[in-house]
Amino acid sequence: MISNARFDVLGIGNAIVDVIAPAEDDFLLAHALHKGGMTLIDHETSARLYGAMGPATIMSGGSAANTMVGIASLGGSAAFIGKVRDDEAGRAFHHDIQAAGVTFPTVAATAGAATARCLVHVTPDGERTMSTFLGACVELGPKDIDESYVAAARIVYLEGYLWDPPDAKAAFRKAADIAHRSGARIALTLSDSFCVDRYRGEFLDLLRTGMVDILFSNTSELHALYQTADLDTAIGELKKEKLLSFVTCSGEGCLVVDRSEVQSVIAAPIERLVDTTGAGDLFAAGALFGVARGFPLARCAAIGALAAAEVIQHYGARPECSLADLITQAGI
Amino acid sequence: MISNARFDVLGIGNAIVDVIAPAEDDFLLAHALHKGGMTLIDHETSARLYGAMGPATIMSGGSAANTMVGIASLGGSAAFIGKVRDDEAGRAFHHDIQAAGVTFPTVAATAGAATARCLVHVTPDGERTMSTFLGACVELGPKDIDESYVAAARIVYLEGYLWDPPDAKAAFRKAADIAHRSGARIALTLSDSFCVDRYRGEFLDLLRTGMVDILFSNTSELHALYQTADLDTAIGELKKEKLLSFVTCSGEGCLVVDRSEVQSVIAAPIERLVDTTGAGDLFAAGALFGVARGFPLARCAAIGALAAAEVIQHYGARPECSLADLITQAGI
Repeated sequence: MISNARFDVLGIGNAIVDVIAPAEDDFLLAHALHKGGMTLIDHETSARLYGAMGPATIMSGGSAANTMVGIASLGGSAAFIGKVRDDEAGRAFHHDIQAAGVTFPTVAATAGAATARCLVHVTPDGERTMSTFLGACVELGPKDIDESYVAAARIVYLEGYLWDPPDAKAAFRKAADIAHRSGARIALTLSDSFCVDRYRGEFLDLLRTGMVDILFSNTSELHALYQTADLDTAIGELKKEKLLSFVTCSGEGCLVVDRSEVQSVIAAPIERLVDTTGAGDLFAAGALFGVARGFPLARCAAIGALAAAEVIQHYGARPECSLADLITQAGI
Repeated sequence: MISNARFDVLGIGNAIVDVIAPAEDDFLLAHALHKGGMTLIDHETSARLYGAMGPATIMSGGSAANTMVGIASLGGSAAFIGKVRDDEAGRAFHHDIQAAGVTFPTVAATAGAATARCLVHVTPDGERTMSTFLGACVELGPKDIDESYVAAARIVYLEGYLWDPPDAKAAFRKAADIAHRSGARIALTLSDSFCVDRYRGEFLDLLRTGMVDILFSNTSELHALYQTADLDTAIGELKKEKLLSFVTCSGEGCLVVDRSEVQSVIAAPIERLVDTTGAGDLFAAGALFGVARGFPLARCAAIGALAAAEVIQHYGARPECSLADLITQAGI
């Protein structure tokens, strides 16, 4: 691990602005949305769906971007690479991530599609269902990977969603090559079970060719990866990959799989579930922060659990308070 | 009162998008902002101040617009007249107010300044301090007052902030003339004590020439109107105006002054004060809804108190749940 790295973690992902509104289950049915999942939509569908949504709150989002904001809130140093357009939403994304203390060097696109937006439908049970128009994210490519940033990170973190825009995969491979040369570790989140269905073979290749060192997934993504409905079977397969893995199990906590060893860590208590958006992103923030700082794995997972618990108790996918203070108060 | 009116209330005001972020008191001092007040700023100052703010949430706002959304949430019929530009923020404002069930006939400006934005700084005590760039609101004029909408309202509600953009006052006078001819009542909110300082003489004229029938203010606005620091003195002056007035006193509830008679109504209980933005707007929503429906005045004020209590327990100035359900549950 790089001891004098400038960044604990560098994240690479889709730069997205979230448009969040409560919705009834009937709304999801009427618009053929997979509850709890993320569906890619084109601009026209985005406009039509937005027109049908209730009054909305607009907040910066993007999975890996949320994770980097969480790391900054924990007191870590984080950077993010992702593509916005030079429009109002892009400027808001830029403002928010920098104001959160994350270094954001990517130049905005001056032509092409608008900044990406994710329509987040939050049902009364707190579950979020997402419809994403990737917009300017499709412009992300190897040219956006600045070697000096990647080489300055202890961990480079990538989202599985990066497989959706056409050139981002090449950006990922460039970043991974630089990272491995500089001694950094590569972490990947599987992002979403539908995303795993789209890119199963490629994701398994990444794990099996040593491209990825640390894996984040939830149980349904893991089930999708190994095409099984049985968690024990999936964990058994995962052990064979010889990785460090964090498998989140919603309210039941998480499993830390360190090569062949499995530890279970309980979820942090919450008062009221409001909106699960960002739960996985913030768990990853806590765990990555801990790993970058060399904490014991159970402590890494406990920090992740506390960060996730904060973000699901309000709307939006980024913390509303200092996670560093929260960790201190909890004595973790 | 018009019995077959299409709208319980038509609001006319500045159409604004709120940009909300937590702030420390030191931030207000460093930027010379009057705590609890609203300062008008130009585009350049808005850009500079936004750059200094923390990560922000973007939600539709505007005082009278918030009030109309509250009326719709209570089950009333409401319309709003206010000017946005045809930009991203303007489209968001348009979407949100229509999605909330409010009729919004005003055509967006296709040239000139951007849609208005209000930078809302929320300090840890829950108090909000606002800096507003009026933008496209300065385009609002008499041409935007559609007689058919005004004549279809039981009450026409105007915000004192309308005195800031140059032509809005003429729009107000046109609306007031139509309203009085059709038998509608005119309600005015004093908006802000600094706003009262700017237009004291004109506001007093409105009350004393019969232009206004119903007045909303908080205690500091009333103190500013009558240039006294003593509430009893101010209420004494108010009685002489021979109006129906609602005077909100923060956590102490409100006073209903019906010509010479004064009733006191307590505030609704809250669990946690998060953000006072919209407290006055939502109180007005409840009270106006009640008055439009011919409820007893104490009940009108109690509905206002409950609506205000909802909105101060979360970020943003518009209700997050059905106020009609809330009123039913509370048995008011």
